[in-house]
Amino acid sequence: MRKIKIVKNYLPHAEGSCLFSMGETKVLCAASVEETVQPFVEKKGETHGWLTAEYAMLPRSCDIRGQRSKLSNGGRAQEISRLIGRALRASIDLSKLGKRTITIDCDVIRADGGTRTASINGGFIALVLALKTLKKKKLLKEIPIKNFIGAVSVGIYDKGKKVLDLSAKEDNNADVDMNVVMTDDGKFIEIQGTAEGETFSKKELDELLQMAAEGIKIINACQKKIVGKLD
Amino acid sequence: MRKIKIVKNYLPHAEGSCLFSMGETKVLCAASVEETVQPFVEKKGETHGWLTAEYAMLPRSCDIRGQRSKLSNGGRAQEISRLIGRALRASIDLSKLGKRTITIDCDVIRADGGTRTASINGGFIALVLALKTLKKKKLLKEIPIKNFIGAVSVGIYDKGKKVLDLSAKEDNNADVDMNVVMTDDGKFIEIQGTAEGETFSKKELDELLQMAAEGIKIINACQKKIVGKLD
Amino acid sequence: MRKIKIVKNYLPHAEGSCLFSMGETKVLCAASVEETVQPFVEKKGETHGWLTAEYAMLPRSCDIRGQRSKLSNGGRAQEISRLIGRALRASIDLSKLGKRTITIDCDVIRADGGTRTASINGGFIALVLALKTLKKKKLLKEIPIKNFIGAVSVGIYDKGKKVLDLSAKEDNNADVDMNVVMTDDGKFIEIQGTAEGETFSKKELDELLQMAAEGIKIINACQKKIVGKLD
Amino acid sequence: MRKIKIVKNYLPHAEGSCLFSMGETKVLCAASVEETVQPFVEKKGETHGWLTAEYAMLPRSCDIRGQRSKLSNGGRAQEISRLIGRALRASIDLSKLGKRTITIDCDVIRADGGTRTASINGGFIALVLALKTLKKKKLLKEIPIKNFIGAVSVGIYDKGKKVLDLSAKEDNNADVDMNVVMTDDGKFIEIQGTAEGETFSKKELDELLQMAAEGIKIINACQKKIVGKLD
Amino acid sequence: MRKIKIVKNYLPHAEGSCLFSMGETKVLCAASVEETVQPFVEKKGETHGWLTAEYAMLPRSCDIRGQRSKLSNGGRAQEISRLIGRALRASIDLSKLGKRTITIDCDVIRADGGTRTASINGGFIALVLALKTLKKKKLLKEIPIKNFIGAVSVGIYDKGKKVLDLSAKEDNNADVDMNVVMTDDGKFIEIQGTAEGETFSKKELDELLQMAAEGIKIINACQKKIVGKLD
Amino acid sequence: MRKIKIVKNYLPHAEGSCLFSMGETKVLCAASVEETVQPFVEKKGETHGWLTAEYAMLPRSCDIRGQRSKLSNGGRAQEISRLIGRALRASIDLSKLGKRTITIDCDVIRADGGTRTASINGGFIALVLALKTLKKKKLLKEIPIKNFIGAVSVGIYDKGKKVLDLSAKEDNNADVDMNVVMTDDGKFIEIQGTAEGETFSKKELDELLQMAAEGIKIINACQKKIVGKLD
Repeated sequence: MRKIKIVKNYLPHAEGSCLFSMGETKVLCAASVEETVQPFVEKKGETHGWLTAEYAMLPRSCDIRGQRSKLSNGGRAQEISRLIGRALRASIDLSKLGKRTITIDCDVIRADGGTRTASINGGFIALVLALKTLKKKKLLKEIPIKNFIGAVSVGIYDKGKKVLDLSAKEDNNADVDMNVVMTDDGKFIEIQGTAEGETFSKKELDELLQMAAEGIKIINACQKKIVGKLD
Repeated sequence: MRKIKIVKNYLPHAEGSCLFSMGETKVLCAASVEETVQPFVEKKGETHGWLTAEYAMLPRSCDIRGQRSKLSNGGRAQEISRLIGRALRASIDLSKLGKRTITIDCDVIRADGGTRTASINGGFIALVLALKTLKKKKLLKEIPIKNFIGAVSVGIYDKGKKVLDLSAKEDNNADVDMNVVMTDDGKFIEIQGTAEGETFSKKELDELLQMAAEGIKIINACQKKIVGKLD
Repeated sequence: MRKIKIVKNYLPHAEGSCLFSMGETKVLCAASVEETVQPFVEKKGETHGWLTAEYAMLPRSCDIRGQRSKLSNGGRAQEISRLIGRALRASIDLSKLGKRTITIDCDVIRADGGTRTASINGGFIALVLALKTLKKKKLLKEIPIKNFIGAVSVGIYDKGKKVLDLSAKEDNNADVDMNVVMTDDGKFIEIQGTAEGETFSKKELDELLQMAAEGIKIINACQKKIVGKLD
Repeated sequence: MRKIKIVKNYLPHAEGSCLFSMGETKVLCAASVEETVQPFVEKKGETHGWLTAEYAMLPRSCDIRGQRSKLSNGGRAQEISRLIGRALRASIDLSKLGKRTITIDCDVIRADGGTRTASINGGFIALVLALKTLKKKKLLKEIPIKNFIGAVSVGIYDKGKKVLDLSAKEDNNADVDMNVVMTDDGKFIEIQGTAEGETFSKKELDELLQMAAEGIKIINACQKKIVGKLD
Repeated sequence: MRKIKIVKNYLPHAEGSCLFSMGETKVLCAASVEETVQPFVEKKGETHGWLTAEYAMLPRSCDIRGQRSKLSNGGRAQEISRLIGRALRASIDLSKLGKRTITIDCDVIRADGGTRTASINGGFIALVLALKTLKKKKLLKEIPIKNFIGAVSVGIYDKGKKVLDLSAKEDNNADVDMNVVMTDDGKFIEIQGTAEGETFSKKELDELLQMAAEGIKIINACQKKIVGKLD
Repeated sequence: MRKIKIVKNYLPHAEGSCLFSMGETKVLCAASVEETVQPFVEKKGETHGWLTAEYAMLPRSCDIRGQRSKLSNGGRAQEISRLIGRALRASIDLSKLGKRTITIDCDVIRADGGTRTASINGGFIALVLALKTLKKKKLLKEIPIKNFIGAVSVGIYDKGKKVLDLSAKEDNNADVDMNVVMTDDGKFIEIQGTAEGETFSKKELDELLQMAAEGIKIINACQKKIVGKLD
């Protein structure tokens, strides 16, 4: 797994933020708190809140310059935004968040593979930091985090070679590409595995999930070190 | 698993089409062939083609009327369109398709859960029928299908009850929702599992995948009966 | 005139719906009821409601695949949506509908000429079925239908040949193309006649309108048989 | 009928233009010539050209300020743009226009009813002036106009009162609103009649068409005076 | 400086309007009053109003026909709309306008250079006329105009030749292009100077500003003559 | 003036890039080279190139989270993108760039006033670094930079207090806000001065321009140190 580097509170205005790097991949994650909820959340109950996410890449984060509107609103960006939102919502007890909406912005500064998993990992840190800010301001009595969560990519390339945390080069040549989101007690939140070139067997799936679980343990340790105690 | 019903060649104009029903869910799948490819495909080689998919729901396919533009172009629709395209591309040897693009349109007439898997199952039939049309017209020498593919949803709801092929009601209450795409020789093409409420363990994952594999076998049998011999 | 076929209540979720076929043309019509009105309707009075319509074609309903956004939101689609809405509003006493909005969705599954008139004919059935649903639920005391309405195309092609209910092939070669919407007591709601190639005289107009009136009588009879008694 | 006022060549840059007033309604019509055609025109033959139209209202042309994007691109604007294009195409022999596209822009400066018919009347003048410019520049050998065309609105309001060339006030209260486009030899190009409040009988239709024919004769006379000889 | 021509109250519906010409450039300016303000204005205080502007060019105002959407909503149009709004807001005491929003529409009928300055000059007249209408209707006690304002372009072209009020031809060849907005007591509201080809020195800037000041005095005199007394 | 900090080549993929900070304001500037030009550039001559710029703010760069589409495509963003492009084009001899297009992306990571001037300053560095890359790759014989350019904001606030390089707090309360772009030999490229609250006199303008000139000298010195020798 590539080296993890985290700069906490990179954005002074945001309730929580970090610059999360995994190798050459660098994602700026910001949590913004708004003291309102949309109608569909209001129906869930008095103390219910919501969390949503937006993922975008900067035009020159990649080898070739991309079109701004496509990078932030195209099909791929929307698919990843929805994944990040789902994953982070699984980490928090929304019924204890209060009538507020947290938006997690994940802007990819540099892309070298694994931008969606880096976004989840960094987004989770931004979320926890924002919740700590809310607690400090006495807007929350306790931090409503159910579990730490982490995400990592695993894959198979070069006729059977299994790899954890793929770089862009490895990803582009992968036969199987899988993103795994797990809790720190080893349960699954999301598994997205795709056969890009070759299909994969149950045995290969099992090995990939094992590698992912080990990688996520390391990520969770880094996250815990950065955010500190939750109470 | 709910009852499968397939009406072949439902659209007289399309090169291949079917109306695919799975219980109350009804998806109209059409394969359209265009004798050009986009520049990124041209680079892959002289005989290379491409396949793309578009998924949309009709406004009143659901309980509550939806907005037309959102149902055909919103984040969810784009995510599912991409999934269908990826899955079907894994079933075909694009290097033998020739310089042509096949578009699979999946329009949900009625929605009662499992619309994305029904789209993949029906879309595959429309694809094979279109390839047979091309062969009949002597535009293809052989049908470039590598494997039959099928898709099904599996999930956990009501505190641990595992279920194959979820209806809308089961899906809305599911703790875990998983869509699985497999080949007819038991290999995986795509696994997308999401913990909506409760996280899930490796043991539960294994059971769900086993159920999916059995369901997909039945689907493949139906598909083979409908499309007939490939040579 | 081509053969009419109507499948009542095709969509279980909609308050009223039908699959309306006229020859090879097939339109899915759904009426959705919402218990609110827009501000401009509110000004009309306490018991006033509104009716609006949306027309779209599925991508492969025609010979050549069309672009989804253009087929549902382009100039032609908007023009036809407005025509359907105007025609159906003329059949109903909106001042007795109550503070609610009915949306008629007309989705063309297969197109072989006359999709807009088929949409009006099928849309009217969906509307009446929805009103009957409202009466059954005791939300309406009586069905506020003023008149049955029907629509049909007439035209001139092949140097003077007059024809009722044009197919796509006839329509594409027509010199004059006219759509007529009438009540079941022989009054006009809408006349839209266009000289595509050759202009037309008053005498020709009179003959076309006579043909249309006869066709609409047959359509009204079919509609009445399907929807049954209104009280 | 209200007073007609025409200012010829109002826009120095356009190949043909006029400011056309009918009572308080004022429309600026401009014909722009481009020496290319779209692919679908190219298929029609070597010497074929095309004509298209765009209709828009200025934000404060009406009593209440309208939204710019809706006034130039909404459903109503698109419907009228299509009507103007169809009507003007019927006046010209496109097979003798040469490989060029003429765009007729009709911008409503002031709106007091009859903006679409004023657009057709003024647009026709702009078209003829542009063709004369092309002939002067030796780009055309002869002016390919088949017929002069004119358009006028007729309607019924106040329980049966028939009226020619409705003002905005009359139009808003009309039970029947009809737009008629005719050639100068008394043939029809387009009839669009709508029952807004009350349906109308064949007898009423006949009377309205008679009134329209008389009004269009006056309009054609004005047009001929302004554009001068065609050879 | 080119000849100024102003037609007052050109649009009967608008609260204030004028057709402002400067040489061949012709801009239709309309002020529309709406008795509401947006939330960000409400926060400024009970009696606070707002002014906003929209600038657009008609498709054939220029030598070459432009695309409608780009001409009214592209980057250039938005930049100029913002400039006009800022300039006009500097002329009025918004805290005395009352809870209302004035929209100034500037539609360029003919463009021969200086359309943005003509828009400011004509827009100011439309604004004052609208305020006089409000006072006449007793909606305002006094006209809240702080200063008359005027705008003019100055530039350098042909290797050092300085020019006031550039025509399109001069503007296209200009090395330096500057738009200046001033009050009638000689203070600056906006200076926008751009070196298109050659950079410019402080001495050249001083000379250009002096020329602009003299031009604006003439414009202010015309405006005062047209709008008459403010009390 | 606030402290300047520049991280060179922040983005490994871009031909030239830097992270430019001025106090708390932080802008990521990237220059991307594409070996094609648009048709309007081709007309300028064989060896002509073009430069364009795009400015956007990240959603949480400010105190309050902004909407992504508005921050990158709204009126303000487009106005600033155009300013940056104009300014940078004035620094380069486009006729010696060759048939290529350079796009300068300026993404505001943190905003504390002066984001457009920081974008110009950092964008210029990215541009020079990209040109050096092109020279290194033997795609250019010499660096076609005509002059170093720099930009700074100056303003008046708190009843007459003049200030160089305004922070967000100063900017929000400014009566006059001016952005000045100059060459390193003291000539002007762009002056944009706006009276937000109070108008300003010629004397005040002169003082502000003097302050700006001094600030830009410091900026030019920093730029020269970072990019090194041009030959």
